[in-house]
Amino acid sequence: MAIKRLSPGKRMSEGVVHGDRIILAGQVAVDGPADIKGQATVVLAQIDALLKDAGSDKSKLLFAQIFLADIGDYVAFNEVWDAWVDQQNPPARACVQSPLVRPEWKVEVQVHAAL
Amino acid sequence: MAIKRLSPGKRMSEGVVHGDRIILAGQVAVDGPADIKGQATVVLAQIDALLKDAGSDKSKLLFAQIFLADIGDYVAFNEVWDAWVDQQNPPARACVQSPLVRPEWKVEVQVHAAL
Amino acid sequence: MAIKRLSPGKRMSEGVVHGDRIILAGQVAVDGPADIKGQATVVLAQIDALLKDAGSDKSKLLFAQIFLADIGDYVAFNEVWDAWVDQQNPPARACVQSPLVRPEWKVEVQVHAAL
Repeated sequence: MAIKRLSPGKRMSEGVVHGDRIILAGQVAVDGPADIKGQATVVLAQIDALLKDAGSDKSKLLFAQIFLADIGDYVAFNEVWDAWVDQQNPPARACVQSPLVRPEWKVEVQVHAAL
Repeated sequence: MAIKRLSPGKRMSEGVVHGDRIILAGQVAVDGPADIKGQATVVLAQIDALLKDAGSDKSKLLFAQIFLADIGDYVAFNEVWDAWVDQQNPPARACVQSPLVRPEWKVEVQVHAAL
Repeated sequence: MAIKRLSPGKRMSEGVVHGDRIILAGQVAVDGPADIKGQATVVLAQIDALLKDAGSDKSKLLFAQIFLADIGDYVAFNEVWDAWVDQQNPPARACVQSPLVRPEWKVEVQVHAAL
């Protein structure tokens, strides 16, 4: 079964398709807005774009791992998430607090989806 | 390949079946006991129930991601885990410390299983 | 579809093969070197060995979840990663900071791969 890599670099790919599934890299708002809602909007748009590149979309999300640098941003993150997610086809989720690679990053979202 | 969602809400599902696999949402002890052993017992029972809903069971677990709010609870969590897990069919695991959404939650477990 | 478990113990397996995929347990440098580069080298060698046991290899990596106990080790970890990863076939990744089970462990890496 073939493996297809999206936006491959020397260190990592932004997504990897295998069979009828895709796993995306954790998405963060590089050079994005400072606030959680702005970053969440950027991150979810990046996920939309990568899923589209793979021939999928958010209605086929299976799972989302959400890392918040500050769990106090949970409510604000969810306001953006709730407006974005396909409410007829919501994925499973997990959400915890973990500091991210750069101190200005407030949220990282990593997803599994079907094609 | 069809996607089936377990206990779907507007924000998330408690589990998503795709092909011969299921991914569950991170399980926590909402309104559960205060102590780690009590919460672990609740969380693992919820996993049993969701797997059963999907036509699977703990003998088919592939992977468990364990988040402890306090890694000092590792030994106590494992006492409950060790009594619960199918010792003939143990999953792969990872366990780290990350604060959870509510301060009273001590453990979140998120699993992948086969059907 | 059969499930095959690698190095199964009573608590967990070091890897689980299901269909054309394998999920490894989070790998840490047990009794390994103290420094991040030494631990990263041990961890990635363990991943190589487990993938080999399953009939896979790092060119078939789909995803790597990296937990650093201190995100300040990110650059040093990546020096080891970049020299190890198959640059023609890089996986998706996510990297966050989470304390690990033992205070001397600096990095845990958990991967999904194809066979």
